[in-house]
Amino acid sequence: MEPQFTRLDAVRAFELAAGVSGQPLFGENAMLNLIRFQPDAVVPRHSHPHEQLGIVLEGMQALVVDGVAHELEPFEAYVLPGGVEHSAYCGPEGALVLDVFTPVREDYLERWQAES
Amino acid sequence: MEPQFTRLDAVRAFELAAGVSGQPLFGENAMLNLIRFQPDAVVPRHSHPHEQLGIVLEGMQALVVDGVAHELEPFEAYVLPGGVEHSAYCGPEGALVLDVFTPVREDYLERWQAES
Repeated sequence: MEPQFTRLDAVRAFELAAGVSGQPLFGENAMLNLIRFQPDAVVPRHSHPHEQLGIVLEGMQALVVDGVAHELEPFEAYVLPGGVEHSAYCGPEGALVLDVFTPVREDYLERWQAES
Repeated sequence: MEPQFTRLDAVRAFELAAGVSGQPLFGENAMLNLIRFQPDAVVPRHSHPHEQLGIVLEGMQALVVDGVAHELEPFEAYVLPGGVEHSAYCGPEGALVLDVFTPVREDYLERWQAES
């Protein structure tokens, strides 16, 4: 793989859930995903074997793990080990979040490439 | 490893180079590092086997690869495959950058823990 440089907020977006879109950058063993939550959008509870890290850039994103809602403001960051069930919601202002997955979410790569 | 939630810009910082500090969050297979460049700071040319991804949050960070300077503004993101030599510099306003490494930089983990 060659080095890549891209304007992440100009990458073609794909839908992650109703009112939640992602703009991805795929490396070999990890990926970035710039997530935009429309106001009051929700990501239903799910899990994946991939480790997920991230940081809130704008607004508020809540991550719900084990029934506890962690309401995260800008510069609040997280690690969700693979296999941990989680859901997410934002507030009335929406949110902008940078997610990181390792390894690459092949399901995202396939969907993103299929929509091109 | 348990889920982690932390205010990344309040994490204890460690020095990466003169005028360049990092605030890390360590997962199992990847890590975040919030990098602050003081005005006109430079990271000398180096390489590491870890894949590096990142995004500029504030200011301008230039990454120099193969003699080409990629001057990156907010929301510009990158992937540097493992083993690719690179250096970095910022402008007179400094910069704030989020770096991601996979696997975890054990050298950073050891230094960060040693300074506690």
